[in-house]
Amino acid sequence: MISVTILGNNSALPAYGRNPTSQYIQTEKDCFLIDCGEGTQLQLTKYKLKRSKISHIFISHLHGDHYFGLIGLLTSMSLLGRTQELHLHGHAMLEKIIQIQMEASESELSYPLYFHPLPSEGRIAETESCVISCFPVKHKIPCHGFLFVEKKNLRKIIPEKVKSFGVPDAFLEELKKGKDYIHPKGTIVSNDELTFSGDIPLKYAFCADTLYHEGLVSYIKGVDLLYYETTYLKDQNERAEKHNHSTTQQAGLMATKAGVKKLLIGHFSSKYENLEPFLTETQAIFSDTILAIEGSCIKV
Amino acid sequence: MISVTILGNNSALPAYGRNPTSQYIQTEKDCFLIDCGEGTQLQLTKYKLKRSKISHIFISHLHGDHYFGLIGLLTSMSLLGRTQELHLHGHAMLEKIIQIQMEASESELSYPLYFHPLPSEGRIAETESCVISCFPVKHKIPCHGFLFVEKKNLRKIIPEKVKSFGVPDAFLEELKKGKDYIHPKGTIVSNDELTFSGDIPLKYAFCADTLYHEGLVSYIKGVDLLYYETTYLKDQNERAEKHNHSTTQQAGLMATKAGVKKLLIGHFSSKYENLEPFLTETQAIFSDTILAIEGSCIKV
Repeated sequence: MISVTILGNNSALPAYGRNPTSQYIQTEKDCFLIDCGEGTQLQLTKYKLKRSKISHIFISHLHGDHYFGLIGLLTSMSLLGRTQELHLHGHAMLEKIIQIQMEASESELSYPLYFHPLPSEGRIAETESCVISCFPVKHKIPCHGFLFVEKKNLRKIIPEKVKSFGVPDAFLEELKKGKDYIHPKGTIVSNDELTFSGDIPLKYAFCADTLYHEGLVSYIKGVDLLYYETTYLKDQNERAEKHNHSTTQQAGLMATKAGVKKLLIGHFSSKYENLEPFLTETQAIFSDTILAIEGSCIKV
Repeated sequence: MISVTILGNNSALPAYGRNPTSQYIQTEKDCFLIDCGEGTQLQLTKYKLKRSKISHIFISHLHGDHYFGLIGLLTSMSLLGRTQELHLHGHAMLEKIIQIQMEASESELSYPLYFHPLPSEGRIAETESCVISCFPVKHKIPCHGFLFVEKKNLRKIIPEKVKSFGVPDAFLEELKKGKDYIHPKGTIVSNDELTFSGDIPLKYAFCADTLYHEGLVSYIKGVDLLYYETTYLKDQNERAEKHNHSTTQQAGLMATKAGVKKLLIGHFSSKYENLEPFLTETQAIFSDTILAIEGSCIKV
């Protein structure tokens, strides 16, 4: 299970009640935050999402609409007495930005904050339920996308087989992990006879602000859900290129080329009040598209 | 004329829909901002206050609930194409905090931003309509209060006298500034004969987060409106002292000792949902007290 709750879907300027980028990710056992625009802590409260459960925060890049709410969230967690560790992943300068603001307030966080500078690409975190990696996208400044892959699920037990081979209850957890059963008489019962494969691991890819470029395909191929930015409608191709962003048409094309299952679009320019044309234009290229509407929760 | 619009009235943590500290100050000719907690740019939009008109921003101290919204406001002004200069007054470290975030985004503001580190006390800015000075308050980290004094108003013309002495229209502006009139025949007509004194200049004092201490009285004596913090109710005296804040009772006492005309209280702790006891307790000491309710505009 992976679910994505949209906390903000707008580009640079807040407009029409829309907030800057942030997404709350829930897996079987973990909660993560991607990006943290100004006001994200209020959005978490509004949508009743527990900030205390977040173990990792991933910041795609250092344009303000993707991180100006971070320092407020980190210090509020401290004021609320958080003690469990928090992992922050972002550009190396982010650590300095947090540090200087903590110094200025002559205070310390109540919990251990571990900062992890993002590599160009590759695995950046692993939790009980999920492996997270990053990949480069093309923007004006260094910018990363993130890929969340559920860990291979445990195998499912076939109760009647387990009974007929007399496997003791104490060994069931080992069976789920794929171990063969060795009978007290020495016979080996292959795990395949006693279990069947669990679900296929789900994949969610978050492409932050980026120019359209097909080099991205290799990182996001076949994911179950792709978030891809559509700052502009398709008639603004030149503008998108000038500002290192993408259009609806490009989002649809990217989803098609990468063979993803579902496409989620957001990061709408503040020049648009009505978002319906974003959906219509993208669906014309890739039909299984949805809008990143604030407060909505998309189950992957 | 001085008016104060409350954009945020809460202490450290946003709570019960209340936002962190910020006030929009309007005089005859100028607009200022005092403090800029997270979300202030959205509050300006909500209350239809033009950010483009702000010429000076005053930051009392570097606890996040007083400035985490500043970088977002500054960059939004730039995205909206501001060209007129902006003056920022605060602790010297604030300049570094802004700089490092501008560097990280590899961008520049569209307008000249002049940073003015706050002196311990004294005059910090003068505009067409107002003189602003700062003074030290007692908090955990360096923290300032601000005093806004309207400039002495122009003198008012006595029309019948102006007519009888034959003062030409072209000289009326000089008369308002206090000049004597020299008749073409050489006679000097004293300004006092032709005009009378304008209104008495209004004064507004903003006391940021502070312990109660009577040293403040000398800076705020007799002001028309005093904003003073009441983070806690009167039964939390020890807590207030521990956290370098004040109570309702102390706010009332300060207003009384300083002989101010009206008292405005705010910076309520997020542990309180109901604000009425703040008003009742303070009014028991100083009757002309009002609550800093978000969106309300207090005319001094």
